[in-house]
Amino acid sequence: MTSDSFFHPVSGFDLPRFAGVPTFMRLPHVPPSHPRFADVQIGLVGVPWDSGTTNRPGPRHGPRQLRDASTMIRAQHAVNGMRPFEMVNCADLGDVGPNPADIQDSMTRITGFYDGLVAAGIRPLTAGGDHLTSLPILRALAKRGPLGMIHFDSHTDLFHSYFGGTMYTHGTPFRRAVEEGLLDPGRVIQIGIRGTMYDTEDREFAKSAGIRIVTIEELFDRGIPDVMAEARKIVGQAPTYVSYDIDFVDPTFAPGTGTPEVGGPNSFQALQVCRELYGVDIAGADMVEVSPPFDASGGTAFLGVSIMFEILCAMLSPSRT
Amino acid sequence: MTSDSFFHPVSGFDLPRFAGVPTFMRLPHVPPSHPRFADVQIGLVGVPWDSGTTNRPGPRHGPRQLRDASTMIRAQHAVNGMRPFEMVNCADLGDVGPNPADIQDSMTRITGFYDGLVAAGIRPLTAGGDHLTSLPILRALAKRGPLGMIHFDSHTDLFHSYFGGTMYTHGTPFRRAVEEGLLDPGRVIQIGIRGTMYDTEDREFAKSAGIRIVTIEELFDRGIPDVMAEARKIVGQAPTYVSYDIDFVDPTFAPGTGTPEVGGPNSFQALQVCRELYGVDIAGADMVEVSPPFDASGGTAFLGVSIMFEILCAMLSPSRT
Amino acid sequence: MTSDSFFHPVSGFDLPRFAGVPTFMRLPHVPPSHPRFADVQIGLVGVPWDSGTTNRPGPRHGPRQLRDASTMIRAQHAVNGMRPFEMVNCADLGDVGPNPADIQDSMTRITGFYDGLVAAGIRPLTAGGDHLTSLPILRALAKRGPLGMIHFDSHTDLFHSYFGGTMYTHGTPFRRAVEEGLLDPGRVIQIGIRGTMYDTEDREFAKSAGIRIVTIEELFDRGIPDVMAEARKIVGQAPTYVSYDIDFVDPTFAPGTGTPEVGGPNSFQALQVCRELYGVDIAGADMVEVSPPFDASGGTAFLGVSIMFEILCAMLSPSRT
Amino acid sequence: MTSDSFFHPVSGFDLPRFAGVPTFMRLPHVPPSHPRFADVQIGLVGVPWDSGTTNRPGPRHGPRQLRDASTMIRAQHAVNGMRPFEMVNCADLGDVGPNPADIQDSMTRITGFYDGLVAAGIRPLTAGGDHLTSLPILRALAKRGPLGMIHFDSHTDLFHSYFGGTMYTHGTPFRRAVEEGLLDPGRVIQIGIRGTMYDTEDREFAKSAGIRIVTIEELFDRGIPDVMAEARKIVGQAPTYVSYDIDFVDPTFAPGTGTPEVGGPNSFQALQVCRELYGVDIAGADMVEVSPPFDASGGTAFLGVSIMFEILCAMLSPSRT
Amino acid sequence: MTSDSFFHPVSGFDLPRFAGVPTFMRLPHVPPSHPRFADVQIGLVGVPWDSGTTNRPGPRHGPRQLRDASTMIRAQHAVNGMRPFEMVNCADLGDVGPNPADIQDSMTRITGFYDGLVAAGIRPLTAGGDHLTSLPILRALAKRGPLGMIHFDSHTDLFHSYFGGTMYTHGTPFRRAVEEGLLDPGRVIQIGIRGTMYDTEDREFAKSAGIRIVTIEELFDRGIPDVMAEARKIVGQAPTYVSYDIDFVDPTFAPGTGTPEVGGPNSFQALQVCRELYGVDIAGADMVEVSPPFDASGGTAFLGVSIMFEILCAMLSPSRT
Amino acid sequence: MTSDSFFHPVSGFDLPRFAGVPTFMRLPHVPPSHPRFADVQIGLVGVPWDSGTTNRPGPRHGPRQLRDASTMIRAQHAVNGMRPFEMVNCADLGDVGPNPADIQDSMTRITGFYDGLVAAGIRPLTAGGDHLTSLPILRALAKRGPLGMIHFDSHTDLFHSYFGGTMYTHGTPFRRAVEEGLLDPGRVIQIGIRGTMYDTEDREFAKSAGIRIVTIEELFDRGIPDVMAEARKIVGQAPTYVSYDIDFVDPTFAPGTGTPEVGGPNSFQALQVCRELYGVDIAGADMVEVSPPFDASGGTAFLGVSIMFEILCAMLSPSRT
Repeated sequence: MTSDSFFHPVSGFDLPRFAGVPTFMRLPHVPPSHPRFADVQIGLVGVPWDSGTTNRPGPRHGPRQLRDASTMIRAQHAVNGMRPFEMVNCADLGDVGPNPADIQDSMTRITGFYDGLVAAGIRPLTAGGDHLTSLPILRALAKRGPLGMIHFDSHTDLFHSYFGGTMYTHGTPFRRAVEEGLLDPGRVIQIGIRGTMYDTEDREFAKSAGIRIVTIEELFDRGIPDVMAEARKIVGQAPTYVSYDIDFVDPTFAPGTGTPEVGGPNSFQALQVCRELYGVDIAGADMVEVSPPFDASGGTAFLGVSIMFEILCAMLSPSRT
Repeated sequence: MTSDSFFHPVSGFDLPRFAGVPTFMRLPHVPPSHPRFADVQIGLVGVPWDSGTTNRPGPRHGPRQLRDASTMIRAQHAVNGMRPFEMVNCADLGDVGPNPADIQDSMTRITGFYDGLVAAGIRPLTAGGDHLTSLPILRALAKRGPLGMIHFDSHTDLFHSYFGGTMYTHGTPFRRAVEEGLLDPGRVIQIGIRGTMYDTEDREFAKSAGIRIVTIEELFDRGIPDVMAEARKIVGQAPTYVSYDIDFVDPTFAPGTGTPEVGGPNSFQALQVCRELYGVDIAGADMVEVSPPFDASGGTAFLGVSIMFEILCAMLSPSRT
Repeated sequence: MTSDSFFHPVSGFDLPRFAGVPTFMRLPHVPPSHPRFADVQIGLVGVPWDSGTTNRPGPRHGPRQLRDASTMIRAQHAVNGMRPFEMVNCADLGDVGPNPADIQDSMTRITGFYDGLVAAGIRPLTAGGDHLTSLPILRALAKRGPLGMIHFDSHTDLFHSYFGGTMYTHGTPFRRAVEEGLLDPGRVIQIGIRGTMYDTEDREFAKSAGIRIVTIEELFDRGIPDVMAEARKIVGQAPTYVSYDIDFVDPTFAPGTGTPEVGGPNSFQALQVCRELYGVDIAGADMVEVSPPFDASGGTAFLGVSIMFEILCAMLSPSRT
Repeated sequence: MTSDSFFHPVSGFDLPRFAGVPTFMRLPHVPPSHPRFADVQIGLVGVPWDSGTTNRPGPRHGPRQLRDASTMIRAQHAVNGMRPFEMVNCADLGDVGPNPADIQDSMTRITGFYDGLVAAGIRPLTAGGDHLTSLPILRALAKRGPLGMIHFDSHTDLFHSYFGGTMYTHGTPFRRAVEEGLLDPGRVIQIGIRGTMYDTEDREFAKSAGIRIVTIEELFDRGIPDVMAEARKIVGQAPTYVSYDIDFVDPTFAPGTGTPEVGGPNSFQALQVCRELYGVDIAGADMVEVSPPFDASGGTAFLGVSIMFEILCAMLSPSRT
Repeated sequence: MTSDSFFHPVSGFDLPRFAGVPTFMRLPHVPPSHPRFADVQIGLVGVPWDSGTTNRPGPRHGPRQLRDASTMIRAQHAVNGMRPFEMVNCADLGDVGPNPADIQDSMTRITGFYDGLVAAGIRPLTAGGDHLTSLPILRALAKRGPLGMIHFDSHTDLFHSYFGGTMYTHGTPFRRAVEEGLLDPGRVIQIGIRGTMYDTEDREFAKSAGIRIVTIEELFDRGIPDVMAEARKIVGQAPTYVSYDIDFVDPTFAPGTGTPEVGGPNSFQALQVCRELYGVDIAGADMVEVSPPFDASGGTAFLGVSIMFEILCAMLSPSRT
Repeated sequence: MTSDSFFHPVSGFDLPRFAGVPTFMRLPHVPPSHPRFADVQIGLVGVPWDSGTTNRPGPRHGPRQLRDASTMIRAQHAVNGMRPFEMVNCADLGDVGPNPADIQDSMTRITGFYDGLVAAGIRPLTAGGDHLTSLPILRALAKRGPLGMIHFDSHTDLFHSYFGGTMYTHGTPFRRAVEEGLLDPGRVIQIGIRGTMYDTEDREFAKSAGIRIVTIEELFDRGIPDVMAEARKIVGQAPTYVSYDIDFVDPTFAPGTGTPEVGGPNSFQALQVCRELYGVDIAGADMVEVSPPFDASGGTAFLGVSIMFEILCAMLSPSRT
C-alpha cells in the first residue's frame, strides 16, 4: 500500500506543531466539494453535535478540540512501525453541519453525508459528537446489511427511552440500531460496562437480543488480550463497526466527558484494546463523547486523538488490505 | 407588607454561608406539592434547560450554580434598606423538569408549571435556562392579555429562524412571542444591543412591529437614568415582564454565558438598571443564559443572583403593592 | 428489607440529573425538625468544617460539592445488584452548622447533632469536613463503648500535637479518640499510609497502643483482598466505624484535598476496598477531606460520592440486618 | 532620602522576572535574625493566616502568591517618578508564623512580631491574611496612642460578634480595635461599603462612635479626589493606619477573595485612591483578603502588589520625611 | 467596493459557529500556493512566535486560539453597518512557520512571507505572536519608505537591549525599527503607556527621536476622541502601520498576555480607539501578545478578534479606497 | 554521615507549610555569594529556562512552582527511614539566570554556574528548565571524563536537528552530549520511550552508538525491578548522571509538561524507579520539563518534588559515601 504525497500530513520538523490551521492529524482539508475528494480512502470526519445528551452537554465542541490536539500526532506507530498516512490516502473531510435545535433534521444531515462517503468508497473515522451520532452513521454504513460492532464504553446505550418516551438520546442509539436492523446483535460486544445503574432494562434487552456485555470487572479479571480475542471471534470476518466512547476510560484520564463513571481503564489500557483490533474488518469507527467544557487541560482530547491514531492503524491491518 | 416567618431565609450569622442544602437565597424549598405552596407570593423557579442554544450550551446547569451562589445574598438592600423577604412570602419552588431531548415537550412542561403559578397567584422570578425559556413562561403569564417587556440583552432574539427554518431557538423567542400575541410590541424595549450582526432582519422586524431598540452606544451616551425613564414610559402602568439576559453585561464581568459580546456594561451598571425598575408593574422576571461551564470561578452566577435580588426588590416597589 | 417510597430518590429517567435542589443522592431532605425524621434508618449528614486543618483549607465546602456530584448516583449497585434506597429508609439530614472561628464550640455542636441521631436510632454516613470531624462524631457514637475502626488514609492522624501544643487538629483526631476511650486500639487498622514523614512519633504511638498500620507498599504487595480480610478479622463482629479520608486515593484521582501524597491507589482500587467491607458491623462512616477549591473539575467529589454509595451498600450487607 | 544598595531589588534587566527565589518585590530577605535587620526602614511582612474567616478560607496562601506576583514590580513609579527602593531601606522580613488551629495564640504571635518592628523603628507594609490580621497588628502599632485609619473595603468589619457570640472574626476587627482604644473612631473613614446587608448593627455602631462611612454610591457620585480630600482631612496630620481589603475592588478585577461584593471600583480606581494618600502620616498599612484558591490566574495578586507599590510610595511622600 | 463570493465567510445561520475547520473569521484558507492567492486584497496572517519574550511565553499559541474565537464574528459592523467581507476579498493566508529555537532565522522567514504579500498587493492584518513580530513585518512593509505608526500598548517597546546586550526581544522592536529607518519617528504615537518602570531610557529615546507618548492618565483625562484626533493628525495621510498589543487593555479584560499592567482601558474603550482610526491610510496592522496559556476562558482571544474586526473595517474606510 | 543544623529545613510542626519564603524543601537559601556556600554538599539549583522548546513553552516557570510545592516535603523517607537533610549539608543555591532570548549565552551562563559547583565539590540536583538544560550542565560535570546516564523519558532526545538544521533544542541534548564526549554511550540507558514517532533517525543513532533504549512496553512487561537491575549494570560503578523528564510519567499524573505522551507510568511507578537507583554513583541529577502553565492544580510540581526527594535519598545511598 502506498499513498499520494498530496495526502501526507505536515511534519513537526518542518512546521512547529502549534502552527497552522488545525486539521485532523495535520492532513489536508478535503471536503466533498474538493477536487481530490474522490481519491480519499480513509476520511476523518467531525460531527459536532450533542442534542441527544441527557446530562451534561459539550461534545458539539469535540471535533474542534480533537483537531487542535491532533497536531501532536506524528507519522509513525511506536510499536509496530506502521506509517498509516503513507499507506492509504487519508484526509480531513471537515464537519457535518448539524442543526443543534432539531434532532431529526440533524440525523438526516449526518446520514446524508455518510451516504456520500459510502458512494465514494471512503471508510470513515469519525470524531463526535455524543453517542447518538453513531446511529445516523450506521444508517449509512449498514445499507448493505447489518454490521457487527466492538463497542468500548462504560454504558450500554441500549435503553428503550428517556423522560417518558423520548427514543432518540445518547442512551438509546444501539437499541434503535438493533431495531432498525443496522447491527447484527449476535455480532455485537460491549466492553467496560460499569457504574451505578437505573435498573436492568438495558441488560435484559442485551441478553434477549444476544449482545455480549463485558463488565469492567470481567475485563480486569481476564485481561485485555483474552477479552479482545473473544471480541474478534464474536465479530468474525464480516464488516464491523468500532465505537469508542471516551467514557470507557477512567474519568481521571479522560475527565472531558458528560457522564463519567469512576473505576475504568487507564490510558495505557485505553490504547491496548485498540492494538487488539488488528485483523478485524473495520467498516468505520468513531470516537465520541469528548466534551471540551469539562476538559480544561485538553488531556482528554489528546488521549482521544491518540486512540484515533491507534484505530486508524488497525483499519489498515493486513487482513483488510 | 409583612411576611410569615416560615418564609424567612437562614441568616449567615446563624449558619455559615457555605453550609446547608442550597436553595435560592436560602429560602425554604416549597415545591407545588408542599403544604405551604398556596401561601407563596413570589416564587423563585429554576428552569434548567438549554435546548434552544445554537452556539455553546450550558445554561441547563444555571439554576444549580445560581442557587449555590445565592447563599451569599443577605437580607437587606444596601441602598434603600428594603428587606424583601420580610415583606412578602418568598420561596424556592424548585426546578421545572425539562426534556433535554425534546423542545416542544419541554415547552409544554414549562408552560404547565407556570400555569400553576398563575392559578395560585404567585409571581415568578425565574433562573434559566437559555433565552428560549422566556417563551413558554410568557405563554402562561400572558393568558390575560399581552404584556409589556423591558429586556436587557446584547441581542434582540427577534430572528425569524435558524438553520433553514428552525423556529424555536434562543435567538427567536420574542419574535414568536409577538406573533403569538404574548407581548405588545409597542410596549417592548430592548436595551444594550451590540456585537457583530448577521444581517438586519431582526432590526427590521423590530422597527415594523414598533419595538424600541437601545444600542449600547445609545445607553452609554444618554446614561442609564435617561434610558430607563424612557423604558418606564414605554411600558407604562400595565403588567410588564422583565427579561435579563446575563450577556447584557460585559463578558469580562459575566464570562459564564454562551454568546458573549464584548464592550458591555460593568457590574455596577448591571445593578443600576434594576434600580431604575421601581414603579414598573412587574408580572414576572427572568435571569437567563448563565452558563456554568464557562464560569469556572462562579463570578457570573454571583453577579446573576445579585441582579436577581435587585429585581426582587423592584418587584416589591410601592406602585405594585 | 424494604423502604418507604417517601425515601426513594428521584430518578434521572424522570428528572434530568442536572435539575432540582441537590440533596445527597437525590434523597429527601429530612432535617431533625422534619415530621419523618423518626423513620430514617440511615442518615447522610454534611459537616462543612475545616478548622482543624493545618495546611490548605477547603473541606468546609465539601458537603455542598458532594451533594452536587451525588446527583450522578443511580439506584442500583452494578456488581451485586443491591438497591439500597429500597432496602432501608435513607435521607439527607442536612448539615451540622459549625462555628468556623471556634473549634471547641464546633465540636460541641457536632457531637450534639450525632447524639440526636443515636437517640433516634439513625446510623450516620457523613460527608466532611476535615478529619478532625471524626472526633466529635465518635464522641456520640461511642457512648456505649469503644468502637473498632477501619481507616483508609495516607496519614495516621495519630500525632500528639502541632505548633507547640495544639491538640485538636486534623492530624490528631485518633490520638484523642484512643485517649478518650472512643476507639479500641486493638480493633483499629489504618490502610494506605505513605508520604514523607515528620518523624516516627505517630507510628510509635500506634505500635504501643496496638493499632495496625498497613503501608501502601504492603497494600500493593499483598493485594486488597488479603489486607481487607485481615481488616475484617481485626475489627471482628463488634460495632466498627469506617473512616475514609479521600487522600487515601492517589492525588491524580482525587486532587481536591489539602494534604495529598503521591503514589496511592487508583479509582478502581478506591472502590474495591469498600466492596471488602461486607460483613462488618458498621456503626457509622465518614468521607472526609474533600476540598472543592483544589478540585476545579469536580472529579474528586464524584469519586467521593461513588465511594459513599459503596459504603452505604456495605452498611446494608447481610450480617448487619 | 537615599538607601543602602544592599536593599535594592534585583532588576528584570539582569535576572528575568520568572527567575530567583521570590521575595516581595525582589527585595532582600531580612528576617529579624538577619544582621541587617536593624537597618530596615520599611518592612514588607507576610501574615499567612485566615482563621478569622467566616465564609470561604484561603488568605493564608496570600503572602506566597503576592510574593510570586511581586516579581513583576519594577523600580519606578510611572506617574510621579519616585524610586522608593532607592529612597529608604526596604526589605522582605518574611512571614509571621501563625497557629492555624488557635486564634488567640496566633494573635499573640502576630502582635509579638510587630512589637519587634516598632522597637526597631521599622514601618510595616503587611500582606495578609484575612482582615482579622489587622487587629493584632494594631495592638502593636497603637502602643503609643490610638491611630487614625483610612480603610478601603466593601464591608465595615464593625460587627459585634458572629455565630452566637464569637468575637474574633474577620467581620469584627475594627469593633474590637475601637473598644480596645487602638483606633480613634473620630479619625476613621471607611470607603467603598456596599453589598447586601445582614442588618444595620454595624452601621449604627459606626454612627454612634463617629466613624465615617462612604458607600460605593457616594464614592462614585462625588469622585475619588473629593472623597479622598475628606479622608485626608479626617485623619489629619497624626499617625494613621491604611487598611486595604482587596474586596474593595470589584470582584471581576479581584476575584481572589472570600466575600466578594459586585459593583465596585475598577483597577484604575483601585490605584487612584492610593495616589490620594500622599501627605498622610502612614504608620503602617496592610493589603488583606487576597485568596489564591479563588484566583486561578493570579490577577488578583498582581493587582494586590500593584496597590502595595502605590501604598509604599505614599508612605514616602514628603510630609512624612 | 465589492468582493468575490468565493471570499465570503460561512454564516452561523448555515453552519453553527462551533462547527468546521477554524480559519480566521470563517474565511477561506488561501495560502500562497493556493490558485486564488493573487486575488486576495486583505490577508489575515498568523505568526505563531514568541522567542522574543523576556517574561512569560505563550503568544506562539495565539493564532490558533484567535482563529478558534473568530468563528464568533459575524458579517456586519453593529454601528456603521459595514460588511467588510463583501467589500474586498479577504482570506486566511495561514501561518508563517517560525523556527522557535532561532530568532534570526525566524525573522528572515517572517520578512520573506510578507515580502510575498507586498509583491502580491495584499494588505496584511496579522495575529501574533509577541511584539518582536512587528519588526520583521515592518522590514517588508517599509521597503518603499518609512511608515507612520499608531501603537496601542502599555509599554513603549523602545528599549535598547536586555540581559547585557540582547537587542532583539519583545521590548525592543520599535527601537530597532526606528534605527533601521522602517518607521518615521515623527509620525509615531504610542497610546496607553503605564505600569511600573525600569528607568527612563525608553522615554528619553522617544523624546529625542520625536515619538509621541500618551500615558494612560492622559488618555483617560482627555478622552479617546481627542487623543485619537491627535493621532490621526500625527500620522497624516501617508501610509501608517497599526500595532495593537493586547496588553493595552486592562488585564482583567485581557488576562491572556505575558506582561500585564493593571489600570488600563475596558473592552468598550478597546473597541472605541479602533473606531477612531477611520481615515487613516493603514498599510498593515497587527494584534500581538495574545497568550492562550494565561487565558483559560478564551475571553482575551475573543476580545482580540473583536478588535481585529474593528481594525479590518478601519482598513476599508473611505479615504483608503 | 551528619549535617550541620544550619542546613536543616524548617519543620511543618513549627511553621505551617504555607508560610515562609519558599525555597527548595524549606532549606536555607545559600547562593554562591553566601558565606556558607563552601559547606554545601548537595545543592538544589533552579534553571528557569525553556528556549530549547520546540512545542509548548513553560518550563522557565518550573523552578518557582517546584519550590512552592516542595514545602510539602517532610524530613524522612517513609520506606527506608532516611533523613537526608540530617546526613549531608543540603541547600537551595538559587537559580541560574538565563538569557531567554539567546540560547548560546544561556548555555554559557549555565555551564559557568555548574563549573563553580564542581570547583566547590557540590553535587547538584537541578530543577529545570526544558531538557536542553541537561547539556550545559553535563559540560560542567563531565570535565573529568564522560559520564554514564540513566534517563527517564518518553522521548530519546537524540535527534540531530530540527527546522532545517537547528542543533540546540530540547530534542537534541543527548545527541550533542555524545558528540561532545560528555556521555559514554555504552553506559547510557533510556527508559519509558513511547509515543508516535517522526521517523527512526534517533533510534538508529542510539543503536549505532550503543545506547540502550527501553520502551514503555518493555518496562511494563519486564517490571521495574528487572529493568532497573539492568540499568544499574549498564552504568556500573562509575559516575553517572540521572536525568528525569517529567513526561516519563503518564500525562494524567503529570499534565504540566509541553510534549506529553499518553500511556506512561503512574505516580507509584514514578517513585519506584528512583528507589531502584540505590547503589549508583550519582554525580548529579535533574528533574526537567515541569511546565506550570499546563499544570493549573500544581499536581505535576508536587509529583516532581516528590521524585526529587527520592533522587536525593538515592544520592546518599551507601555505596556513594
